[in-house]
Amino acid sequence: MAGISKILENNKQWVATKNAEDPQFFKNLANGQKPKYLFIGCSDSRVPASGITGTGPGEMFVHRNIANLVVHSDMNLLSVLQYAVEVLGVQDILVVGHYGCGGVAAAAANKQYGLIDNWLVNIRDVIRLHEAEYLRIKDDGQRARRLVELNVMEQVRNLAKTNIIQNAMRGDNPPRLHGLVYDIADGVLKDLDVHGDDMMADMEHIYATEAVTKAPDKDASSYEGPKHDPAKELVAEKKGAVEKK
Amino acid sequence: MAGISKILENNKQWVATKNAEDPQFFKNLANGQKPKYLFIGCSDSRVPASGITGTGPGEMFVHRNIANLVVHSDMNLLSVLQYAVEVLGVQDILVVGHYGCGGVAAAAANKQYGLIDNWLVNIRDVIRLHEAEYLRIKDDGQRARRLVELNVMEQVRNLAKTNIIQNAMRGDNPPRLHGLVYDIADGVLKDLDVHGDDMMADMEHIYATEAVTKAPDKDASSYEGPKHDPAKELVAEKKGAVEKK
Amino acid sequence: MAGISKILENNKQWVATKNAEDPQFFKNLANGQKPKYLFIGCSDSRVPASGITGTGPGEMFVHRNIANLVVHSDMNLLSVLQYAVEVLGVQDILVVGHYGCGGVAAAAANKQYGLIDNWLVNIRDVIRLHEAEYLRIKDDGQRARRLVELNVMEQVRNLAKTNIIQNAMRGDNPPRLHGLVYDIADGVLKDLDVHGDDMMADMEHIYATEAVTKAPDKDASSYEGPKHDPAKELVAEKKGAVEKK
Amino acid sequence: MAGISKILENNKQWVATKNAEDPQFFKNLANGQKPKYLFIGCSDSRVPASGITGTGPGEMFVHRNIANLVVHSDMNLLSVLQYAVEVLGVQDILVVGHYGCGGVAAAAANKQYGLIDNWLVNIRDVIRLHEAEYLRIKDDGQRARRLVELNVMEQVRNLAKTNIIQNAMRGDNPPRLHGLVYDIADGVLKDLDVHGDDMMADMEHIYATEAVTKAPDKDASSYEGPKHDPAKELVAEKKGAVEKK
Repeated sequence: MAGISKILENNKQWVATKNAEDPQFFKNLANGQKPKYLFIGCSDSRVPASGITGTGPGEMFVHRNIANLVVHSDMNLLSVLQYAVEVLGVQDILVVGHYGCGGVAAAAANKQYGLIDNWLVNIRDVIRLHEAEYLRIKDDGQRARRLVELNVMEQVRNLAKTNIIQNAMRGDNPPRLHGLVYDIADGVLKDLDVHGDDMMADMEHIYATEAVTKAPDKDASSYEGPKHDPAKELVAEKKGAVEKK
Repeated sequence: MAGISKILENNKQWVATKNAEDPQFFKNLANGQKPKYLFIGCSDSRVPASGITGTGPGEMFVHRNIANLVVHSDMNLLSVLQYAVEVLGVQDILVVGHYGCGGVAAAAANKQYGLIDNWLVNIRDVIRLHEAEYLRIKDDGQRARRLVELNVMEQVRNLAKTNIIQNAMRGDNPPRLHGLVYDIADGVLKDLDVHGDDMMADMEHIYATEAVTKAPDKDASSYEGPKHDPAKELVAEKKGAVEKK
Repeated sequence: MAGISKILENNKQWVATKNAEDPQFFKNLANGQKPKYLFIGCSDSRVPASGITGTGPGEMFVHRNIANLVVHSDMNLLSVLQYAVEVLGVQDILVVGHYGCGGVAAAAANKQYGLIDNWLVNIRDVIRLHEAEYLRIKDDGQRARRLVELNVMEQVRNLAKTNIIQNAMRGDNPPRLHGLVYDIADGVLKDLDVHGDDMMADMEHIYATEAVTKAPDKDASSYEGPKHDPAKELVAEKKGAVEKK
Repeated sequence: MAGISKILENNKQWVATKNAEDPQFFKNLANGQKPKYLFIGCSDSRVPASGITGTGPGEMFVHRNIANLVVHSDMNLLSVLQYAVEVLGVQDILVVGHYGCGGVAAAAANKQYGLIDNWLVNIRDVIRLHEAEYLRIKDDGQRARRLVELNVMEQVRNLAKTNIIQNAMRGDNPPRLHGLVYDIADGVLKDLDVHGDDMMADMEHIYATEAVTKAPDKDASSYEGPKHDPAKELVAEKKGAVEKK
C-alpha cells in the first residue's frame, strides 16, 4: 500500500486510537481552538511540531516554511502572525530552527537549487550580519550548527520588527517571543534564551515605532482563550440574521 | 508551569518516550530526510499534520498557512513546492483543508480582521468561481462545509497551474496531487478524489504550458529518496575541498 | 556613447531645458509631493506614465509591474496602495493596460518563460473567468485586445476587494477607481468606463466587508493635498526634539 | 475639469504633439519594444522615469515601488527582473533613489503609517548595516541624504544576490548594475558609481552561487534587441497553427 491509501489507512487507526483513549477527544476539539502558542518552524519532515513540543490538538497554531524564515514583507507569514496575535491572542511565539537544516546548509554553500535560491538569500544575509563570529569557527559541523542558531535569533528579531508585534507589546497581554533549536540527533529542544526585547535592546533606536492603534481595552490579566472565533461569529451572525427576520 | 517551560518539559518527556520505544529512533533520523509526501495544510491548532496522517518523522514535508492557500505568486509557498518537488522529489502532494476553518468562515462573512483580510480574498475568489453551487445550498452549516471543499479543490488546481508542477509532470516520477478534508469533529480525513489532471481537464487550453526544461534524465521507476540533500552535499563539498589541499 | 553615460548626458539636457522653461521648476518640486493620481501600469518600455497622461512631476504616484497586475496578497503593491490612499490621500486610481502587452500575450499562449510564468498565471485566471466571451472572438488580434481589457477590468476589481479601498470608500474623500487601456499604435488612452462600484455591483455579497476602522474625521469637502508628508514630519520631529532640549 | 477627464484631455494633446513632431512615432512603437535599460525607481510622483533619464518610449523597462526596494523574495520585482534580463535582454539595470524620499524618511523616524511599516523595515535594515557611518553624521539633512544613498547601494547589492543576475553575469552579454540618486531640488541624476561586482567584492564568499543553467548560446557581441517578444511569438504561433491545418 502506498501513496494516499496509506495515509487514509493511517488516519483510520489514529482516529480509533484517539477515541479509545478519550471518547470526548474530538467532541472537545470541535468547540473551537484556543491556542496559546504560535510555532514558526521549518518544513523539514523531521520536525513534527506537535511531537517535539508535546502539544495536543488545539494548543498550538503553526506556520512552517523552508528554514523557518520570518520575512517582514511576506504576506503569507504576516497573515499568520496577525491572525495569531490579534485575533487568537496567542501568548508565546516560538521560532524553532533545527540542526541539520537543508535550507541552512544550502545557504552556507555555493550551489544553486532553483527558485528557492532567492528565498535562501535571507540566510546568507544572516551570515553577512554575523560574519566575524561565523568565520572564526573552524570546525565545519560547529559552524553549520551556529548558523542554525544565528538564523533563529535573526528571525526572532524580524518578528520584533513588525508593527504587529510592536503594537501587541503595548497591549495588556503582550506575547513573549522565543528562539529555540531542535536537535534531530537526540530530539532535544533547546531554548536559546533570546527574546524580542533582548534581541532589540541595542536596536530600539532603529526599529521601534510609535503605536498609532490604541492598546486593546481588554483588562484581563490572564489568558482566557481567543479574542475572536470567526467560525462561531459566522454562525452567530447567521442566527442573528435569521432572528431579525 | 506555563509558557515555554511547559514546552521544554513536554519535550523531555517526548524524548524519553521515543528512546524507550526505539533506541535507534533519533540516530536514524539524523541520517537525512526522505519524505515521500508534501502536506499543505492550515495553521489551525487542531490540524496536527503528523497525527492525522499517521506519518512519523522523516516522512512528510510540511507547509502550513492560514486556510491552506496555494497562491501562485507567493514565494514562501513556491519555495516549499520547488524544493519538495525538484530537490526532494516527493511523490504525493496533499492539500488538506478542514471543516470549521476560521479563515474560511471569515471569508464567508463580511467582518474585517485586519491585514489578513487581503490574504482571505483568495477564498472569496473561490466563492465567486462557484457562486451558483454555493448559493444553492440553503443550510448554513452545509454551505460552510462545501466552501471548505471548494477551497481545497481550487488550491489543488492552483498547484497544477505552476510551472513547477507542470514540468515535474513530464518527468519520470510525476508527483500526484490530492485534495483532502479533515473533520475536526471526528478526526476523519476524507479524500475529495480530485487530482491535478482531473481538475485541469477542462482548463488545459488555458493553463497548460510547454516545458522548456528537459525531463529529468533519471530513469528510476520507483521512489528511492531525495535527489539532493544539501546538508550532506555541504559536508561532501567541504571534505572534497580538504582532500584537494 | 552608450549605457549609463548616455543616461547622464540626457539628464543634463533635461535639467537645462526645464530650467530654461521655468526657473522655479525644481524649487517648487522640492516642497513636497501632492499627487492626486495613483497610476498602476505595465513595466513595458512603451508606456511612459507621465507622457501618456500629460501629468508633470508631483502629480502622479506610480507603480509599474509586469502586465499591471493587482495581486491582493502582494506586499509590494499593497504598500504602494496603502501609502497612496491613506497617507497621500490620492483621489483617482488608474489601472492602465496597453494593447500589445507582452505579458498578456505570454499568458494567452502556452510557452514557458521562467519564474515569470507563475506571476502570469494571474492573467490565465482572467481568461478562465471570462472564457465564453474570450473564446467567442474568432479574430486572433481582436481576442488578444479583449484580453488586455478584461485584465484591466479584473485588476480594478482586485483593488476594490482590498480592505484598503473598502475602508477608504467610507471616508470623506473616497478615491475613484478607473480602468484604462493605452494603444501603443496611436497613443490614445481609452477609458473603459469601469469603476470600483460598477465592477463590484453584482459581487457585493461576496466581497464587501464591514469597516472596523472609523472613517477619517477630516471633513474637508475638496482635495487639499496629502494628509502626511513623512519627509517633512521627520524634519519637524527633529526640530521638536531639539527645542525640547 | 478634474480627475480622469483631465487625464484624457492631456492625452489627446500629447498624441497631437507627438504626431506633429514625428508622424511615424506611434507606427514605430507598435513594432515591439527593444529596451536596453531596466529602471527600478520610487513611486514618488516627482521622479518621472522617462523625463529624468531622457529616454523615449521603447527604451526603458520600468518597475516602481515605494523607496525603490529590491526585496529578493518579492515575486513582483523578481518577475520584472527575470523578464527584463532573460527575455528582453536589457543591458543596464538602474536602481534610482531620490533625496527627499518619503519612504526613507518614514523609516528614519519612529512613527507608524500602517501596512507599509513592514515594507519599510527593509530600509531600517539598511540603517542597521551601516549604523556607525549613519550615526556619525550630525546634520539631520545630511544624514537623511546619506540614507537615501546607502539604500540605493544595498538595493544594487540585493540585485546581485539573485540567481537571475548571477546567472546572467556568466552569459555573453552580462547586464551592468548601477546605483543612482536623483535630486528633486535640481533635477540632477548622480551616479553613485557602485556596481554589482564592486558591491559584492568583499561578499563573494557569502553570496556567490554556481550556475546550474548553461550560459546562453548566443554569441552576439553587441546588443541587437530582445531575445523574445511574446506578442510576436503569439502571432507567429497562431499563424503556424493555421498553416498546419
